[in-house]
Amino acid sequence: MNVTIFVEDDKANTQPEVLKVYKEGIAAELATIFKGKARTVSAFEPECGLTKEVLGDTDVLLWWGHRFHGMVSDEVAKRVTDAVLTGMGLVVLHSGHYSKPFRALMGTTCSLRWRDGDFERLWICSPSHPIAKGLPEYIELKEEEMYGEYFDIPTPDDLVGIGWFRGGEVFRSVCAFRRGLGKVIYIQPGHETNPTYKNKDIRKLIRNAAEWAAADIRAAAPTGSRHCEVPPESK
Amino acid sequence: MNVTIFVEDDKANTQPEVLKVYKEGIAAELATIFKGKARTVSAFEPECGLTKEVLGDTDVLLWWGHRFHGMVSDEVAKRVTDAVLTGMGLVVLHSGHYSKPFRALMGTTCSLRWRDGDFERLWICSPSHPIAKGLPEYIELKEEEMYGEYFDIPTPDDLVGIGWFRGGEVFRSVCAFRRGLGKVIYIQPGHETNPTYKNKDIRKLIRNAAEWAAADIRAAAPTGSRHCEVPPESK
Amino acid sequence: MNVTIFVEDDKANTQPEVLKVYKEGIAAELATIFKGKARTVSAFEPECGLTKEVLGDTDVLLWWGHRFHGMVSDEVAKRVTDAVLTGMGLVVLHSGHYSKPFRALMGTTCSLRWRDGDFERLWICSPSHPIAKGLPEYIELKEEEMYGEYFDIPTPDDLVGIGWFRGGEVFRSVCAFRRGLGKVIYIQPGHETNPTYKNKDIRKLIRNAAEWAAADIRAAAPTGSRHCEVPPESK
Amino acid sequence: MNVTIFVEDDKANTQPEVLKVYKEGIAAELATIFKGKARTVSAFEPECGLTKEVLGDTDVLLWWGHRFHGMVSDEVAKRVTDAVLTGMGLVVLHSGHYSKPFRALMGTTCSLRWRDGDFERLWICSPSHPIAKGLPEYIELKEEEMYGEYFDIPTPDDLVGIGWFRGGEVFRSVCAFRRGLGKVIYIQPGHETNPTYKNKDIRKLIRNAAEWAAADIRAAAPTGSRHCEVPPESK
Repeated sequence: MNVTIFVEDDKANTQPEVLKVYKEGIAAELATIFKGKARTVSAFEPECGLTKEVLGDTDVLLWWGHRFHGMVSDEVAKRVTDAVLTGMGLVVLHSGHYSKPFRALMGTTCSLRWRDGDFERLWICSPSHPIAKGLPEYIELKEEEMYGEYFDIPTPDDLVGIGWFRGGEVFRSVCAFRRGLGKVIYIQPGHETNPTYKNKDIRKLIRNAAEWAAADIRAAAPTGSRHCEVPPESK
Repeated sequence: MNVTIFVEDDKANTQPEVLKVYKEGIAAELATIFKGKARTVSAFEPECGLTKEVLGDTDVLLWWGHRFHGMVSDEVAKRVTDAVLTGMGLVVLHSGHYSKPFRALMGTTCSLRWRDGDFERLWICSPSHPIAKGLPEYIELKEEEMYGEYFDIPTPDDLVGIGWFRGGEVFRSVCAFRRGLGKVIYIQPGHETNPTYKNKDIRKLIRNAAEWAAADIRAAAPTGSRHCEVPPESK
Repeated sequence: MNVTIFVEDDKANTQPEVLKVYKEGIAAELATIFKGKARTVSAFEPECGLTKEVLGDTDVLLWWGHRFHGMVSDEVAKRVTDAVLTGMGLVVLHSGHYSKPFRALMGTTCSLRWRDGDFERLWICSPSHPIAKGLPEYIELKEEEMYGEYFDIPTPDDLVGIGWFRGGEVFRSVCAFRRGLGKVIYIQPGHETNPTYKNKDIRKLIRNAAEWAAADIRAAAPTGSRHCEVPPESK
Repeated sequence: MNVTIFVEDDKANTQPEVLKVYKEGIAAELATIFKGKARTVSAFEPECGLTKEVLGDTDVLLWWGHRFHGMVSDEVAKRVTDAVLTGMGLVVLHSGHYSKPFRALMGTTCSLRWRDGDFERLWICSPSHPIAKGLPEYIELKEEEMYGEYFDIPTPDDLVGIGWFRGGEVFRSVCAFRRGLGKVIYIQPGHETNPTYKNKDIRKLIRNAAEWAAADIRAAAPTGSRHCEVPPESK
C-alpha cells in the first residue's frame, strides 16, 4: 500500500503551538501510523508535491489542511479528484472538510458548526465495518475541536462513527463515500493543538480507513462516455 | 388521512405515575396531535383492536409499547407487518423499538443501551426532509430516557435526527425505512413518565412523520412472486 | 409551485429534426406538463435566463441540455448549484447528465455508455416512492437513446427506475439525491428526436419528480460554517 | 476462512436433470470454488447439518434452496439468522431469496417475477466494490432463469450488479446488506438446470462475495439491550 500524506504546512511553516504537540509536525506524526512507510508532502512544495507521478503512485492519500486551503491551486485540486475518480483512496482529516478536493467530490458546502476545546466521545455505530475493526465501542478525546451538525454533506454510503461533545453537539464524525472508482473517508478528530494523532485508537481508525480506501483497481483516466454497438449476443 | 394509534395499555391499565403526566393516558395525548381525528386501540382489546378491518382502513399506524410487547400475538404482529408491506405507514415510538412488528420489519435485534432521566438535545441532520419540516435545528427535552448506540438496526433509508444525551451518548433517534409498499419511521423520544408528547416540536415531528408515512397506495396483499411471459414487444 | 424550464436551445436554434417532433421545441412541450404554468429559458438568453431573481423565484428547475453545455458559463452554473444547496429542486433530463450543474453536484464524471435508436422498457423498482405515484410497473418507449451502465454517479439516495434496452444494456434511469437543502432527480429518457415527452407516463413521472423536488424551505445562501457557544443548557 | 455450503438436496435427493449438469450435485460444484475447502450440508441431515457447533465454526455460509425451504425448521432458520447477527457472513444464491433466513433478515416478502430459460447479461454497477474485483463489465449467461423487478427487498447497502434479460426484464441481481454484526449478499444467477456455477466469472463473484461477507468479528450472542451508567468522564 503506497501512502501519501498531504499536510498543508511543512515543519518550517508550522505554528509553534502545534510543534509543542507534534515535535516534527503533523505529517511526521501521521507517517508513524504507517511505520514511516509513507511519503509526506505539503502546500509549500511546487505543485503541493502532488504531481501526476506522485498521485499515480499513490494508493491512498491522507489530507490535512486548514489555514492554507487556498494555496492548493485549482489544477492540483482537480488532479487529486481525478485521481480519486480513477481509484485512489482519499482519507480527509479534520478541517480538510473544507479542502478543495473534498468539497468538489461532495458537491455540497461541507459546512458545519464548530468550537474549540471540548471533550469528545466518538461512538462507533457500524461495528462490523472494516473501518471499525478492533476499535472499542467509543473513543474518548479529552480535548478536541467540536464539529457539530448540520454537516452539509451528501448521505454517506456508510456512517461509521458519531461524535458526542460535552458542549451539547453531535456530528457524523466517520463517513465513507464511493466516488467514481475511488473511496473517500472523512474523519473528524485531529485539531492541531490537541494530541489526537497520538491516541492509539484514532491511529487504528486512520490505519483501517487507509486500508479500506486504498485502490485495488486504478484506471488511466476518469471514466468517459462511450458509444457502443449492440453486443453480438443481443442482435 | 386515517390514523390509528396503538398504545399498549388502556387507561385502566396505565400506571399512576404515567397518568400524572398524561391524565387520559398516552393514546389520548397522541390523538390530540391529530386534533382527535384518530382511532385509539390497546393490547387489552380483543386482537389488540387491530383487526383486518381496522388495519385495512388505516393509512398510518402509531405504535407505543413497552411492558406488554408479549400481549401482541404473533398473528396480530404479522397482520401489522403485512399491512405495512401492502402500503400502510408505521410510526414506531420510543420503546416500540422492541415491539414484534418493528423487529420483524428490521430483521435485527433492535437492541440499544439505555438509562432513565437524562437531558436530551435532538439534532436534525437532514433539514430538507419532509419529516423535519418546520422544526428548529434541535429540540431540547429536559428529561427523557437515554437510548444510545450501538442501535442494532439496518442502515436507515433516511437518517433525520441524532440524539445527544448529557450522560455522554448519541443515538440515531429519527430514522425512516421503506419496507415493501410501506414506510416505517422510528422516533426515539417518549418515555412514559416524561411529558415529551406535550412538547410542541415533538408533536410537529410526529405529525410530519405520520403524513410522510401515510399510504398513498395500498395493495390487497403483500406482493407475491409471479411467473410472467415474455412481453410481446421483446419477442 | 414555481417551475422554470431550462432547455439549451430556443426555437430559433433548434434543429429541424427536433422541430418535426416538437413543433414549438422541447421547452414548450415540457411546459405543457405544467399546463403552461412554467417559465422557459434558454442558453441563448443573457445569463441563460437564469438570473439571481429568476432562480430565487423558482421552486423547481428542469434542465435539458446536450450540444450547448459549454454555453452555460461557470458563473451561471455555480448560481444554479448554489440555488439547489439553498433548497431549489433540480430535475435533470436525459443528456443533462453532462451539464455543469449536475456534474458539480455529483462530484463524479457522470459518464455512461450510449447508442441511438433503441427500444426501452423502464422498470419501477421503488413503487411506493412519491416519484412513482400512479405509474404502471414499466413504461415502454418504442425508440429512445440507450444510456447504459456503468453510470458514474454517487449512490443515489433513492433508486426509483431501471431502464432495459433491447440492445442489451441496463441503466439506473430514475435516481434521486439530496444535496444541501435541495433535491436533485435525474431522469434518463428524452432524446430530442424521439417523442418521449409526449408519452403520458413519462409526463406523469416528470410531474411527480418536480413536485417531489420542489423546495419547501429556501435559505438566503448556502449554509456556511458557524462558530457556536456552548448552549446554556449544557453548561 | 471457514466456509459452509448449505444446498437443500443431497446427491441422493437431487433431480436427474440437475445431476446431468452437476454430476455430484450443486454443493460439490460450489465447494470447488473454494478448492474443496468447504463443509457441505443439506436439508436431509438432522438439523439440516446446521448445528450450533457448525454455525459457530463458520465464517461464511452459502445458501442454495428452492423446493425444500419448508424442510428447514423455524428453529434452524432462527439459529442461522442469529449467527448472522453475531457476525457470520451469509451468501444467498438464486432461489434462496425465498428461504426462511433471508426473508427474516430482510423483513419483506422477497417476491419477484420469474421465467425459465432466458439469456442474461449481468452488469456491474459498482466496479470499485470488493465483490466486483477482477470481474469484467458484464457477465453473460446463455441460459438462466429470469428474475425480474419489482424485487421486494429493503434498499441494499450496496447495489453491485443489475441483470438484463432478453425477454425484457431487469433485476437487482447482486445486493449487499449489513444486518447486526453480519453481512448478507444476494446473488441471483444459479438455476439448477443451467451450468451457471461452472462459469468462471460467476465463480469469481461468489468467491469475492464470500471473502467480503466472512466474519472478522464474532459475538457470543446477538446484541442485547443494556442498562448503562453515566460514563465517569461525563459526570
